[in-house]
Amino acid sequence: MELLEKLNWRFATKAMNGKKIPQEKIDIILEAARLAPTSSGLQPYEILVITNQEVKEKIKPHAWNQSQITDCSHLLVFAAWDNYTEERINNMFDLTNEIRGFKNEGWENYRQQLLQVYPPRPAEENFTHAAKQAYIGFGAAIIAAAFEEVDSTPMEGFSPDAVDEVLNLREKGLRSVLLLPLGYRDSENDWLVNLTKVRKTKEDFITEIK
Amino acid sequence: MELLEKLNWRFATKAMNGKKIPQEKIDIILEAARLAPTSSGLQPYEILVITNQEVKEKIKPHAWNQSQITDCSHLLVFAAWDNYTEERINNMFDLTNEIRGFKNEGWENYRQQLLQVYPPRPAEENFTHAAKQAYIGFGAAIIAAAFEEVDSTPMEGFSPDAVDEVLNLREKGLRSVLLLPLGYRDSENDWLVNLTKVRKTKEDFITEIK
Repeated sequence: MELLEKLNWRFATKAMNGKKIPQEKIDIILEAARLAPTSSGLQPYEILVITNQEVKEKIKPHAWNQSQITDCSHLLVFAAWDNYTEERINNMFDLTNEIRGFKNEGWENYRQQLLQVYPPRPAEENFTHAAKQAYIGFGAAIIAAAFEEVDSTPMEGFSPDAVDEVLNLREKGLRSVLLLPLGYRDSENDWLVNLTKVRKTKEDFITEIK
Repeated sequence: MELLEKLNWRFATKAMNGKKIPQEKIDIILEAARLAPTSSGLQPYEILVITNQEVKEKIKPHAWNQSQITDCSHLLVFAAWDNYTEERINNMFDLTNEIRGFKNEGWENYRQQLLQVYPPRPAEENFTHAAKQAYIGFGAAIIAAAFEEVDSTPMEGFSPDAVDEVLNLREKGLRSVLLLPLGYRDSENDWLVNLTKVRKTKEDFITEIK
């Protein structure tokens, strides 16, 4: 039950104390995200890890001035591909062949299928699909952080366009999707820390079809 | 490093052996999803847990006839709200007040903000937002399964409309988003089990801004 204890311990931290997270824990959190599954294994997003205080200050006003942006130890920015291009799809399939050391017919047919379906679709549709994959890694990073007893604040509420500009993401074909400040709770100043976690009951969340 | 070992052990299982997962492990996996964070804490999705073999058979043709649908022990269907309604938003805010035993002005203002923004938006936009939250819980369930040494196959490739019909989801205001067969790998018949896991390098996945 250790995992569930950690998941009950975690909460969307509202105040952080500026304390630095050891690099070893950051590595585990990022590795959990890197290992998370994505559709067709494309991994259509990247993570920016911001410890530069000036850059954090620039992002803060675009995220409702939430204090965790600057009081966190590491600010993760999940940025999804703005589109699926032939090059990006081929890169991942080529990487697979390179790592596994052989070409497989079924895999090559699947490559052709994706090349036929994805690049012709509207960029916005592809971006939305890529963004969803980032949410899986986001979940992985949040759980890994809890597991390492590192606090985090999942944030969707920010101005992606403004953050993209601060970080020059559009030039790299990326668009910010999610923010995840990582740090340590400032229990004396966090209004949420002592409140009961609220979740729907199992009965309202789960339906068994036996 | 135990968590990362488990994440390296897991893979998108291509063949399952029909063995049943103990209820205790299923409970942990579902609880991890229930505890996962969602935007504004709305938990705008539900999970259907299918062990009925006939229902699994009905779903299989709508998921590329993948064998895991019927050879898994438990088939999870992540189904998101088709829209954000006043009633759904109020239910979650009321539940919070009930569990915490008090009303908070900031929280009530936030309720009004969501009531003003979400219900007037197009249903499709709200559904997409709700679906993204399901991806976080999906990530949590996959990791919890790995942690419990239960195999899983993350599936996005199926016909949601057909699955919605099999499960009468639309009547409940739900739309299927993701499938997650849970079970045990059939190593002799799984073409993927012995292949190296492929992920982008850390350098291609992570950018540090120091």
